[in-house]
Amino acid sequence: MTRVACAEFAPVVGDPVGNRRRVADWITRAREQGADLAVLPELATSGYVFADTAEARAAAMAADDVTLAEWARVAGEMSVVAGFCELGDDGALYNSAVVLHGGRVQAVYRKTHLWDRERLVFRPGAEPAPVVEVAGRRVGVLICYDLEFPEMPRSLALRGAELLVAPVNWPVVPRPEGERPPEVVQAMAAARTNRVFMAVCDRGGTERGQEWTRGTVVIDEAGWIVAGGDAATGEERLVVADLTLSRARNKAISAHNDVLSDRRPELYGYPDARGMSAG
Amino acid sequence: MTRVACAEFAPVVGDPVGNRRRVADWITRAREQGADLAVLPELATSGYVFADTAEARAAAMAADDVTLAEWARVAGEMSVVAGFCELGDDGALYNSAVVLHGGRVQAVYRKTHLWDRERLVFRPGAEPAPVVEVAGRRVGVLICYDLEFPEMPRSLALRGAELLVAPVNWPVVPRPEGERPPEVVQAMAAARTNRVFMAVCDRGGTERGQEWTRGTVVIDEAGWIVAGGDAATGEERLVVADLTLSRARNKAISAHNDVLSDRRPELYGYPDARGMSAG
Repeated sequence: MTRVACAEFAPVVGDPVGNRRRVADWITRAREQGADLAVLPELATSGYVFADTAEARAAAMAADDVTLAEWARVAGEMSVVAGFCELGDDGALYNSAVVLHGGRVQAVYRKTHLWDRERLVFRPGAEPAPVVEVAGRRVGVLICYDLEFPEMPRSLALRGAELLVAPVNWPVVPRPEGERPPEVVQAMAAARTNRVFMAVCDRGGTERGQEWTRGTVVIDEAGWIVAGGDAATGEERLVVADLTLSRARNKAISAHNDVLSDRRPELYGYPDARGMSAG
Repeated sequence: MTRVACAEFAPVVGDPVGNRRRVADWITRAREQGADLAVLPELATSGYVFADTAEARAAAMAADDVTLAEWARVAGEMSVVAGFCELGDDGALYNSAVVLHGGRVQAVYRKTHLWDRERLVFRPGAEPAPVVEVAGRRVGVLICYDLEFPEMPRSLALRGAELLVAPVNWPVVPRPEGERPPEVVQAMAAARTNRVFMAVCDRGGTERGQEWTRGTVVIDEAGWIVAGGDAATGEERLVVADLTLSRARNKAISAHNDVLSDRRPELYGYPDARGMSAG
Protein backbone atom coordinates (compact mmCIF):
# COMPACT_ATOMS: atom_id res chain seq x y z
CA MET A 1 0.00 0.00 0.00
CA THR A 2 1.20 3.47 -0.87
CA ARG A 3 -0.08 6.56 0.90
CA VAL A 4 0.17 9.62 -1.33
CA ALA A 5 -0.25 13.14 0.06
CA CYS A 6 -0.58 16.16 -2.20
CA ALA A 7 0.09 19.51 -0.55
CA GLU A 8 -2.14 22.05 -2.29
CA PHE A 9 -0.62 25.11 -0.67
CA ALA A 10 -0.08 28.72 -1.71
CA PRO A 11 3.47 29.72 -2.61
CA VAL A 12 4.07 33.47 -2.39
CA VAL A 13 5.65 35.15 -5.40
CA GLY A 14 8.61 37.30 -4.40
CA ASP A 15 9.27 35.33 -1.19
CA PRO A 16 11.62 32.49 -2.21
CA VAL A 17 13.06 32.08 1.29
CA GLY A 18 9.61 31.78 2.80
CA ASN A 19 8.52 29.36 0.07
CA ARG A 20 11.44 27.01 0.79
CA ARG A 21 10.34 26.92 4.41
CA ARG A 22 6.70 26.42 3.40
CA VAL A 23 7.67 23.42 1.30
CA ALA A 24 9.61 21.93 4.24
CA ASP A 25 6.58 22.51 6.48
CA TRP A 26 4.22 20.73 4.07
CA ILE A 27 6.67 17.86 3.71
CA THR A 28 6.57 17.55 7.49
CA ARG A 29 2.77 17.59 7.49
CA ALA A 30 2.63 14.86 4.82
CA ARG A 31 5.09 12.77 6.81
CA GLU A 32 2.97 13.22 9.93
CA GLN A 33 0.02 11.79 7.97
CA GLY A 34 2.04 8.65 7.32
CA ALA A 35 2.57 9.40 3.63
CA ASP A 36 4.99 7.31 1.59
CA LEU A 37 5.10 9.96 -1.14
CA ALA A 38 4.44 13.70 -0.90
CA VAL A 39 3.67 15.78 -3.97
CA LEU A 40 3.98 19.58 -4.04
CA PRO A 41 2.86 22.09 -6.66
CA GLU A 42 4.69 23.34 -9.72
CA LEU A 43 7.12 26.19 -8.98
CA ALA A 44 6.54 25.75 -5.26
CA THR A 45 9.68 27.74 -4.47
CA SER A 46 8.97 30.78 -6.57
CA GLY A 47 5.27 31.25 -7.24
CA TYR A 48 4.10 31.56 -10.82
CA VAL A 49 3.02 35.04 -11.92
CA PHE A 50 6.40 36.71 -12.27
CA ALA A 51 6.61 40.46 -12.81
CA ASP A 52 9.56 39.77 -15.10
CA THR A 53 12.35 37.29 -15.74
CA ALA A 54 14.54 38.97 -13.12
CA GLU A 55 12.02 38.07 -10.45
CA ALA A 56 12.07 34.42 -11.54
CA ARG A 57 15.86 34.47 -11.62
CA ALA A 58 16.02 35.89 -8.11
CA ALA A 59 13.94 32.93 -6.89
CA ALA A 60 15.83 30.26 -8.82
CA MET A 61 18.15 27.68 -7.28
CA ALA A 62 20.47 25.05 -8.71
CA ALA A 63 19.66 21.34 -8.49
CA ASP A 64 22.52 20.95 -5.98
CA ASP A 65 21.19 23.71 -3.72
CA VAL A 66 21.32 22.80 -0.03
CA THR A 67 17.58 23.49 0.15
CA LEU A 68 16.85 20.26 -1.72
CA ALA A 69 19.12 18.28 0.63
CA GLU A 70 17.32 19.87 3.55
CA TRP A 71 13.90 18.87 2.17
CA ALA A 72 15.19 15.33 1.65
CA ARG A 73 16.35 15.25 5.26
CA VAL A 74 12.97 16.48 6.51
CA ALA A 75 11.24 13.83 4.36
CA GLY A 76 13.01 10.97 6.17
CA GLU A 77 11.89 7.65 4.66
CA MET A 78 9.18 9.40 2.62
CA SER A 79 9.66 10.20 -1.09
CA VAL A 80 8.92 13.72 -2.38
CA VAL A 81 8.18 15.21 -5.80
CA ALA A 82 8.17 19.01 -5.81
CA GLY A 83 8.17 21.70 -8.44
CA PHE A 84 10.89 24.34 -8.25
CA CYS A 85 12.36 27.18 -10.26
CA GLU A 86 15.73 25.84 -11.41
CA LEU A 87 18.84 27.75 -12.39
CA GLY A 88 20.65 25.51 -14.85
CA ASP A 89 24.41 25.05 -15.25
CA ASP A 90 23.88 26.78 -18.58
CA GLY A 91 22.54 29.89 -16.88
CA ALA A 92 19.02 29.28 -18.20
CA LEU A 93 15.92 28.99 -16.02
CA TYR A 94 13.88 25.78 -16.05
CA ASN A 95 10.43 24.92 -14.71
CA SER A 96 11.54 21.73 -12.95
CA ALA A 97 10.47 18.99 -10.57
CA VAL A 98 12.80 17.22 -8.17
CA VAL A 99 12.37 13.65 -6.94
CA LEU A 100 13.78 13.19 -3.44
CA HIS A 101 14.28 9.92 -1.61
CA GLY A 102 16.64 8.41 0.93
CA GLY A 103 18.11 11.75 1.91
CA ARG A 104 19.10 12.83 -1.58
CA VAL A 105 18.05 14.05 -5.02
CA GLN A 106 17.10 11.07 -7.22
CA ALA A 107 16.15 12.97 -10.36
CA VAL A 108 15.40 16.44 -11.72
CA TYR A 109 12.93 16.77 -14.58
CA ARG A 110 12.66 19.93 -16.68
CA LYS A 111 9.18 20.65 -18.07
CA THR A 112 8.90 19.62 -21.72
CA HIS A 113 5.90 21.72 -22.78
CA LEU A 114 5.87 25.33 -21.60
CA TRP A 115 2.59 27.14 -21.10
CA ASP A 116 1.92 30.65 -22.41
CA ARG A 117 4.27 33.27 -20.90
CA GLU A 118 6.47 30.59 -19.34
CA ARG A 119 8.07 30.62 -22.77
CA LEU A 120 9.37 34.13 -22.07
CA VAL A 121 11.04 33.03 -18.83
CA PHE A 122 12.02 29.36 -19.05
CA ARG A 123 13.93 27.16 -21.45
CA PRO A 124 12.05 23.92 -22.24
CA GLY A 125 13.56 20.63 -21.07
CA ALA A 126 15.67 18.61 -23.50
CA GLU A 127 15.30 15.15 -21.90
CA PRO A 128 12.30 12.77 -21.75
CA ALA A 129 10.25 12.79 -18.58
CA PRO A 130 11.76 10.26 -16.15
CA VAL A 131 10.51 7.08 -14.53
CA VAL A 132 12.21 6.90 -11.13
CA GLU A 133 12.15 3.89 -8.83
CA VAL A 134 11.82 4.97 -5.21
CA ALA A 135 11.26 2.41 -2.44
CA GLY A 136 10.23 -0.14 -5.06
CA ARG A 137 7.64 2.21 -6.59
CA ARG A 138 7.97 3.14 -10.24
CA VAL A 139 7.04 6.82 -10.41
CA GLY A 140 6.75 8.86 -13.63
CA VAL A 141 7.02 12.64 -13.42
CA LEU A 142 5.24 15.28 -15.50
CA ILE A 143 4.59 18.99 -14.97
CA CYS A 144 1.25 20.72 -15.66
CA TYR A 145 0.81 21.41 -19.43
CA ASP A 146 2.73 18.17 -20.16
CA LEU A 147 -0.50 16.40 -19.14
CA GLU A 148 -2.32 17.84 -22.14
CA PHE A 149 -0.17 15.67 -24.41
CA PRO A 150 -1.37 12.06 -24.18
CA GLU A 151 2.00 10.99 -25.57
CA MET A 152 3.55 11.89 -22.21
CA PRO A 153 1.55 9.59 -19.89
CA ARG A 154 1.72 6.94 -22.61
CA SER A 155 5.49 7.18 -22.79
CA LEU A 156 5.84 6.87 -19.00
CA ALA A 157 3.45 3.90 -18.87
CA LEU A 158 5.33 2.14 -21.68
CA ARG A 159 8.49 2.62 -19.67
CA GLY A 160 6.94 0.93 -16.62
CA ALA A 161 5.58 3.77 -14.48
CA GLU A 162 2.87 2.63 -12.07
CA LEU A 163 2.11 6.07 -10.65
CA LEU A 164 2.30 9.35 -12.56
CA VAL A 165 2.98 12.35 -10.37
CA ALA A 166 2.44 15.88 -11.60
CA PRO A 167 3.11 19.18 -9.86
CA VAL A 168 0.78 21.70 -11.52
CA ASN A 169 -0.45 25.29 -11.34
CA TRP A 170 -3.83 25.22 -13.04
CA PRO A 171 -5.16 28.73 -13.72
CA VAL A 172 -8.97 28.80 -13.51
CA VAL A 173 -10.55 28.34 -16.96
CA PRO A 174 -14.26 28.55 -17.82
CA ARG A 175 -16.25 25.33 -17.58
CA PRO A 176 -19.94 24.49 -17.81
CA GLU A 177 -21.93 24.39 -14.57
CA GLY A 178 -21.48 21.07 -12.79
CA GLU A 179 -18.42 20.01 -14.76
CA ARG A 180 -15.07 19.12 -13.30
CA PRO A 181 -12.03 21.19 -14.26
CA PRO A 182 -11.12 20.04 -17.78
CA GLU A 183 -7.59 19.16 -16.70
CA VAL A 184 -9.10 16.64 -14.27
CA VAL A 185 -11.08 15.01 -17.10
CA GLN A 186 -7.84 14.82 -19.05
CA ALA A 187 -6.02 13.18 -16.14
CA MET A 188 -8.84 10.64 -15.61
CA ALA A 189 -8.58 9.63 -19.27
CA ALA A 190 -4.79 9.34 -19.08
CA ALA A 191 -5.02 7.06 -16.04
CA ARG A 192 -7.65 4.82 -17.62
CA THR A 193 -5.93 4.67 -21.01
CA ASN A 194 -2.67 3.52 -19.51
CA ARG A 195 -3.90 1.71 -16.39
CA VAL A 196 -1.71 3.87 -14.17
CA PHE A 197 -2.41 5.76 -10.97
CA MET A 198 -2.08 9.54 -10.97
CA ALA A 199 -1.39 12.12 -8.27
CA VAL A 200 -1.68 15.70 -9.47
CA CYS A 201 -0.91 18.50 -7.01
CA ASP A 202 -2.37 21.92 -7.81
CA ARG A 203 -1.79 25.08 -5.79
CA GLY A 204 -3.96 27.37 -3.66
CA GLY A 205 -4.05 31.09 -3.09
CA THR A 206 -4.45 33.97 -5.52
CA GLU A 207 -1.43 35.60 -7.11
CA ARG A 208 -1.47 39.06 -8.71
CA GLY A 209 -5.12 38.54 -9.59
CA GLN A 210 -4.61 35.02 -10.91
CA GLU A 211 -6.94 32.46 -9.37
CA TRP A 212 -6.00 28.80 -9.31
CA THR A 213 -8.27 25.85 -9.89
CA ARG A 214 -7.24 24.06 -6.70
CA GLY A 215 -8.07 20.85 -8.54
CA THR A 216 -5.61 18.50 -6.83
CA VAL A 217 -6.64 14.96 -7.63
CA VAL A 218 -5.61 11.36 -7.03
CA ILE A 219 -6.92 8.87 -9.60
CA ASP A 220 -6.86 5.09 -9.68
CA GLU A 221 -5.76 2.87 -12.56
CA ALA A 222 -9.35 2.54 -13.82
CA GLY A 223 -9.56 6.31 -14.22
CA TRP A 224 -11.77 7.03 -11.20
CA ILE A 225 -11.13 9.71 -8.63
CA VAL A 226 -9.94 8.47 -5.24
CA ALA A 227 -9.43 11.89 -3.61
CA GLY A 228 -9.82 15.55 -4.59
CA GLY A 229 -10.87 16.33 -8.15
CA ASP A 230 -13.31 19.01 -7.14
CA ALA A 231 -12.21 22.61 -7.08
CA ALA A 232 -11.44 23.21 -3.42
CA THR A 233 -12.98 26.16 -1.61
CA GLY A 234 -10.32 26.51 1.07
CA GLU A 235 -6.93 28.13 0.52
CA GLU A 236 -4.72 25.15 1.37
CA ARG A 237 -5.20 21.42 1.99
CA LEU A 238 -3.48 18.06 2.11
CA VAL A 239 -5.16 15.55 -0.24
CA VAL A 240 -4.38 12.02 0.96
CA ALA A 241 -5.11 8.65 -0.66
CA ASP A 242 -4.03 5.05 -0.19
CA LEU A 243 -3.17 3.24 -3.44
CA THR A 244 -2.29 -0.35 -4.35
CA LEU A 245 0.22 0.44 -7.08
CA SER A 246 0.74 -3.20 -8.08
CA ARG A 247 -2.66 -3.04 -9.78
CA ALA A 248 -1.04 -0.81 -12.41
CA ARG A 249 1.16 -3.72 -13.49
CA ASN A 250 -1.86 -5.56 -14.88
CA LYS A 251 -2.71 -4.06 -18.27
CA ALA A 252 -5.22 -6.79 -19.20
CA ILE A 253 -8.79 -5.54 -19.51
CA SER A 254 -10.43 -8.62 -21.05
CA ALA A 255 -9.47 -12.20 -21.85
CA HIS A 256 -8.15 -10.92 -25.17
CA ASN A 257 -7.01 -7.35 -24.49
CA ASP A 258 -4.08 -5.50 -22.94
CA VAL A 259 -4.08 -1.71 -23.15
CA LEU A 260 -0.40 -1.46 -24.01
CA SER A 261 0.26 -4.50 -26.18
CA ASP A 262 -2.95 -3.85 -28.16
CA ARG A 263 -1.31 -0.71 -29.59
CA ARG A 264 -0.64 -0.77 -33.32
CA PRO A 265 1.91 2.02 -33.85
CA GLU A 266 2.49 1.04 -37.47
CA LEU A 267 -1.06 2.21 -38.22
CA TYR A 268 -1.08 5.50 -36.35
CA GLY A 269 0.38 7.21 -39.40
CA TYR A 270 1.75 10.30 -37.71
CA PRO A 271 3.18 12.70 -40.27
CA ASP A 272 6.10 13.26 -37.90
CA ALA A 273 6.55 9.57 -37.13
CA ARG A 274 10.10 9.86 -38.42
CA GLY A 275 10.76 12.47 -35.76
CA MET A 276 9.44 10.11 -33.10
CA SER A 277 12.20 7.61 -33.83
CA ALA A 278 14.86 10.19 -33.04
CA GLY A 279 14.11 10.17 -29.29
CA MET B 1 -22.97 25.01 -39.50
CA THR B 2 -23.11 21.23 -39.45
CA ARG B 3 -26.05 19.32 -38.01
CA VAL B 4 -24.98 15.89 -36.79
CA ALA B 5 -27.55 13.21 -35.92
CA CYS B 6 -26.55 10.01 -34.15
CA ALA B 7 -29.06 7.17 -34.41
CA GLU B 8 -28.80 5.17 -31.19
CA PHE B 9 -31.01 2.30 -32.29
CA ALA B 10 -31.14 -1.43 -31.56
CA PRO B 11 -29.91 -3.77 -34.29
CA VAL B 12 -31.25 -7.31 -33.95
CA VAL B 13 -28.72 -10.12 -34.06
CA GLY B 14 -29.74 -12.82 -36.54
CA ASP B 15 -31.88 -10.43 -38.61
CA PRO B 16 -29.51 -8.91 -41.19
CA VAL B 17 -32.28 -8.13 -43.68
CA GLY B 18 -34.29 -6.32 -41.03
CA ASN B 19 -31.20 -4.43 -39.83
CA ARG B 20 -30.45 -3.11 -43.32
CA ARG B 21 -33.98 -1.75 -43.44
CA ARG B 22 -33.65 -0.32 -39.92
CA VAL B 23 -30.49 1.54 -40.94
CA ALA B 24 -32.28 2.99 -43.98
CA ASP B 25 -35.18 4.06 -41.75
CA TRP B 26 -32.84 5.84 -39.30
CA ILE B 27 -31.04 7.52 -42.18
CA THR B 28 -34.42 8.80 -43.30
CA ARG B 29 -35.24 10.07 -39.80
CA ALA B 30 -31.89 11.87 -39.56
CA ARG B 31 -32.50 13.45 -42.95
CA GLU B 32 -35.95 14.56 -41.85
CA GLN B 33 -34.29 16.35 -38.92
CA GLY B 34 -32.20 18.34 -41.37
CA ALA B 35 -28.97 16.56 -40.55
CA ASP B 36 -25.87 17.11 -42.67
CA LEU B 37 -24.25 13.98 -41.29
CA ALA B 38 -25.87 10.88 -39.79
CA VAL B 39 -23.92 8.45 -37.62
CA LEU B 40 -25.07 4.90 -36.93
CA PRO B 41 -23.74 2.33 -34.44
CA GLU B 42 -20.97 -0.21 -34.88
CA LEU B 43 -22.11 -3.42 -36.61
CA ALA B 44 -25.51 -1.87 -37.30
CA THR B 45 -26.25 -4.54 -39.93
CA SER B 46 -25.48 -7.60 -37.86
CA GLY B 47 -25.81 -6.95 -34.17
CA TYR B 48 -22.88 -7.75 -31.92
CA VAL B 49 -23.26 -10.81 -29.70
CA PHE B 50 -22.79 -13.56 -32.28
CA ALA B 51 -23.53 -17.18 -31.35
CA ASP B 52 -20.57 -18.12 -33.52
CA THR B 53 -18.55 -16.97 -36.53
CA ALA B 54 -21.06 -18.57 -38.90
CA GLU B 55 -23.75 -16.21 -37.62
CA ALA B 56 -21.50 -13.20 -38.28
CA ARG B 57 -20.64 -14.54 -41.72
CA ALA B 58 -24.32 -14.97 -42.56
CA ALA B 59 -24.88 -11.28 -41.77
CA ALA B 60 -21.80 -9.99 -43.61
CA MET B 61 -21.86 -8.04 -46.87
CA ALA B 62 -19.18 -6.80 -49.23
CA ALA B 63 -18.28 -3.11 -49.50
CA ASP B 64 -19.86 -3.10 -52.97
CA ASP B 65 -23.14 -4.56 -51.74
CA VAL B 66 -26.19 -2.84 -53.22
CA THR B 67 -27.37 -2.15 -49.66
CA LEU B 68 -24.73 0.54 -49.26
CA ALA B 69 -25.73 2.16 -52.55
CA GLU B 70 -29.37 2.09 -51.39
CA TRP B 71 -28.45 3.78 -48.08
CA ALA B 72 -26.50 6.42 -50.03
CA ARG B 73 -29.56 7.02 -52.21
CA VAL B 74 -31.83 7.37 -49.16
CA ALA B 75 -29.33 9.81 -47.60
CA GLY B 76 -29.65 12.26 -50.48
CA GLU B 77 -27.37 15.25 -49.84
CA MET B 78 -26.64 14.07 -46.31
CA SER B 79 -23.42 12.24 -45.41
CA VAL B 80 -23.58 8.96 -43.45
CA VAL B 81 -21.10 6.99 -41.35
CA ALA B 82 -22.39 3.55 -40.37
CA GLY B 83 -20.87 0.42 -38.88
CA PHE B 84 -21.38 -2.83 -40.77
CA CYS B 85 -20.18 -6.41 -40.77
CA GLU B 86 -17.96 -6.64 -43.85
CA LEU B 87 -17.06 -9.66 -45.93
CA GLY B 88 -13.66 -8.86 -47.42
CA ASP B 89 -12.35 -9.83 -50.87
CA ASP B 90 -9.97 -12.06 -48.94
CA GLY B 91 -12.88 -13.98 -47.43
CA ALA B 92 -12.20 -12.59 -43.95
CA LEU B 93 -14.75 -10.73 -41.83
CA TYR B 94 -14.08 -7.13 -40.77
CA ASN B 95 -15.72 -4.85 -38.24
CA SER B 96 -16.04 -1.90 -40.61
CA ALA B 97 -17.51 1.56 -41.04
CA VAL B 98 -18.63 3.00 -44.35
CA VAL B 99 -18.64 6.69 -45.26
CA LEU B 100 -21.41 7.53 -47.72
CA HIS B 101 -21.90 10.80 -49.56
CA GLY B 102 -23.20 12.02 -52.88
CA GLY B 103 -24.92 8.74 -53.65
CA ARG B 104 -21.88 6.53 -53.27
CA VAL B 105 -19.34 4.90 -50.94
CA GLN B 106 -16.53 7.36 -50.16
CA ALA B 107 -14.48 5.15 -47.85
CA VAL B 108 -14.55 1.93 -45.87
CA TYR B 109 -12.56 1.72 -42.65
CA ARG B 110 -11.77 -1.59 -40.96
CA LYS B 111 -11.45 -1.42 -37.16
CA THR B 112 -7.82 -1.33 -36.06
CA HIS B 113 -8.18 -2.50 -32.45
CA LEU B 114 -10.49 -5.47 -31.86
CA TRP B 115 -12.24 -5.86 -28.52
CA ASP B 116 -12.35 -9.15 -26.64
CA ARG B 117 -14.14 -11.92 -28.56
CA GLU B 118 -14.21 -9.85 -31.75
CA ARG B 119 -10.73 -11.31 -32.17
CA LEU B 120 -12.29 -14.72 -32.67
CA VAL B 121 -14.55 -13.46 -35.47
CA PHE B 122 -12.90 -10.54 -37.23
CA ARG B 123 -9.58 -9.80 -38.84
CA PRO B 124 -8.13 -6.43 -37.69
CA GLY B 125 -7.78 -3.67 -40.27
CA ALA B 126 -4.44 -3.15 -41.98
CA GLU B 127 -4.81 0.51 -43.01
CA PRO B 128 -4.77 3.72 -40.92
CA ALA B 129 -8.12 5.21 -39.99
CA PRO B 130 -9.18 7.61 -42.75
CA VAL B 131 -9.85 11.33 -42.92
CA VAL B 132 -12.56 11.78 -45.55
CA GLU B 133 -13.67 15.12 -46.97
CA VAL B 134 -17.43 15.19 -47.49
CA ALA B 135 -19.23 18.40 -48.45
CA GLY B 136 -16.18 20.39 -47.37
CA ARG B 137 -16.10 18.75 -43.93
CA ARG B 138 -12.99 16.86 -42.89
CA VAL B 139 -14.28 13.79 -41.04
CA GLY B 140 -12.07 11.23 -39.29
CA VAL B 141 -13.47 7.75 -38.64
CA LEU B 142 -12.84 5.42 -35.69
CA ILE B 143 -14.70 2.43 -34.30
CA CYS B 144 -15.34 1.81 -30.59
CA TYR B 145 -12.23 0.35 -28.88
CA ASP B 146 -10.05 2.46 -31.22
CA LEU B 147 -11.07 5.42 -29.03
CA GLU B 148 -9.19 3.94 -26.09
CA PHE B 149 -5.91 4.63 -27.92
CA PRO B 150 -5.16 8.36 -27.81
CA GLU B 151 -2.81 7.82 -30.75
CA MET B 152 -5.89 7.36 -32.97
CA PRO B 153 -7.66 10.71 -32.43
CA ARG B 154 -4.24 12.35 -32.43
CA SER B 155 -3.36 10.81 -35.78
CA LEU B 156 -6.65 11.94 -37.33
CA ALA B 157 -6.27 15.47 -35.93
CA LEU B 158 -2.71 15.72 -37.24
CA ARG B 159 -4.06 14.74 -40.64
CA GLY B 160 -6.60 17.57 -40.57
CA ALA B 161 -9.81 15.99 -39.25
CA GLU B 162 -12.22 18.58 -37.80
CA LEU B 163 -14.83 16.08 -36.64
CA LEU B 164 -14.15 12.55 -35.39
CA VAL B 165 -17.02 10.16 -35.93
CA ALA B 166 -17.20 6.83 -34.16
CA PRO B 167 -19.78 4.05 -34.46
CA VAL B 168 -19.58 2.13 -31.16
CA ASN B 169 -21.24 -0.67 -29.17
CA TRP B 170 -20.35 0.10 -25.56
CA PRO B 171 -21.19 -2.80 -23.24
CA VAL B 172 -22.19 -1.52 -19.80
CA VAL B 173 -19.21 -1.47 -17.43
CA PRO B 174 -19.26 -0.63 -13.72
CA ARG B 175 -18.81 3.01 -12.78
CA PRO B 176 -19.08 4.96 -9.52
CA GLU B 177 -22.42 6.55 -8.71
CA GLY B 178 -22.89 9.86 -10.52
CA GLU B 179 -20.05 9.29 -12.99
CA ARG B 180 -20.39 9.35 -16.74
CA PRO B 181 -19.58 6.20 -18.71
CA PRO B 182 -15.77 6.03 -18.76
CA GLU B 183 -15.73 5.93 -22.57
CA VAL B 184 -17.42 9.35 -22.56
CA VAL B 185 -14.68 10.75 -20.30
CA GLN B 186 -12.15 9.34 -22.73
CA ALA B 187 -13.89 10.97 -25.69
CA MET B 188 -14.10 14.35 -23.90
CA ALA B 189 -10.35 14.23 -23.29
CA ALA B 190 -9.64 13.27 -26.91
CA ALA B 191 -11.71 16.20 -28.19
CA ARG B 192 -10.04 18.71 -25.90
CA THR B 193 -6.52 17.38 -26.47
CA ASN B 194 -6.83 17.71 -30.22
CA ARG B 195 -9.33 20.58 -30.49
CA VAL B 196 -11.65 18.45 -32.64
CA PHE B 197 -15.39 17.79 -32.48
CA MET B 198 -16.58 14.26 -31.80
CA ALA B 199 -19.80 12.38 -32.61
CA VAL B 200 -19.96 8.93 -31.06
CA CYS B 201 -23.00 6.76 -31.79
CA ASP B 202 -23.72 3.95 -29.34
CA ARG B 203 -26.54 1.39 -29.67
CA GLY B 204 -29.71 0.61 -27.75
CA GLY B 205 -31.52 -2.59 -26.90
CA THR B 206 -30.33 -5.69 -25.06
CA GLU B 207 -28.81 -8.60 -26.94
CA ARG B 208 -28.49 -12.13 -25.53
CA GLY B 209 -28.30 -10.66 -22.05
CA GLN B 210 -25.80 -7.96 -23.03
CA GLU B 211 -26.82 -4.46 -21.99
CA TRP B 212 -25.44 -1.45 -23.80
CA THR B 213 -24.37 1.84 -22.28
CA ARG B 214 -26.49 3.93 -24.65
CA GLY B 215 -23.89 6.64 -24.15
CA THR B 216 -24.16 8.38 -27.53
CA VAL B 217 -22.44 11.73 -27.25
CA VAL B 218 -21.57 14.80 -29.30
CA ILE B 219 -18.63 16.84 -27.95
CA ASP B 220 -17.26 20.23 -28.95
CA GLU B 221 -13.66 21.11 -29.65
CA ALA B 222 -13.14 22.31 -26.08
CA GLY B 223 -14.09 18.85 -24.79
CA TRP B 224 -17.56 19.74 -23.47
CA ILE B 225 -20.69 17.74 -24.18
CA VAL B 226 -23.14 19.34 -26.59
CA ALA B 227 -25.70 16.48 -26.69
CA GLY B 228 -26.10 13.05 -25.11
CA GLY B 229 -23.32 11.78 -22.87
CA ASP B 230 -25.66 10.45 -20.26
CA ALA B 231 -26.69 6.81 -20.36
CA ALA B 232 -30.10 6.95 -22.02
CA THR B 233 -33.08 5.25 -20.41
CA GLY B 234 -35.11 4.72 -23.58
CA GLU B 235 -34.42 1.98 -26.13
CA GLU B 236 -33.76 4.16 -29.15
CA ARG B 237 -33.15 7.85 -29.84
CA LEU B 238 -31.75 10.35 -32.30
CA VAL B 239 -29.11 12.60 -30.69
CA VAL B 240 -28.85 15.83 -32.69
CA ALA B 241 -26.38 18.72 -32.38
CA ASP B 242 -25.36 21.73 -34.45
CA LEU B 243 -21.59 22.25 -34.71
CA THR B 244 -19.37 24.97 -36.15
CA LEU B 245 -16.61 22.72 -37.42
CA SER B 246 -14.36 25.57 -38.54
CA ARG B 247 -13.56 26.15 -34.85
CA ALA B 248 -11.54 22.92 -34.98
CA ARG B 249 -9.13 24.51 -37.40
CA ASN B 250 -7.86 26.85 -34.70
CA LYS B 251 -5.43 24.90 -32.50
CA ALA B 252 -4.18 27.99 -30.62
CA ILE B 253 -5.07 27.99 -26.92
CA SER B 254 -2.98 30.94 -25.75
CA ALA B 255 -0.84 33.66 -27.29
CA HIS B 256 2.08 31.21 -27.17
CA ASN B 257 0.48 27.76 -27.51
CA ASP B 258 -0.95 25.49 -30.18
CA VAL B 259 -2.04 22.00 -29.17
CA LEU B 260 -0.57 20.30 -32.21
CA SER B 261 2.59 22.28 -32.94
CA ASP B 262 3.52 22.27 -29.23
CA ARG B 263 4.10 18.51 -29.49
CA ARG B 264 7.71 17.39 -28.99
CA PRO B 265 7.78 13.88 -30.44
CA GLU B 266 11.56 13.63 -30.15
CA LEU B 267 11.12 13.57 -26.35
CA TYR B 268 8.27 11.08 -26.06
CA GLY B 269 10.81 8.27 -26.04
CA TYR B 270 8.48 5.46 -27.06
CA PRO B 271 10.35 2.14 -26.98
CA ASP B 272 8.56 1.27 -30.22
CA ALA B 273 9.16 4.67 -31.81
CA ARG B 274 11.02 2.90 -34.57
CA GLY B 275 7.83 0.98 -35.32
CA MET B 276 5.94 4.25 -35.57
CA SER B 277 8.07 5.39 -38.49
CA ALA B 278 7.04 2.34 -40.51
CA GLY B 279 3.44 3.61 -41.02
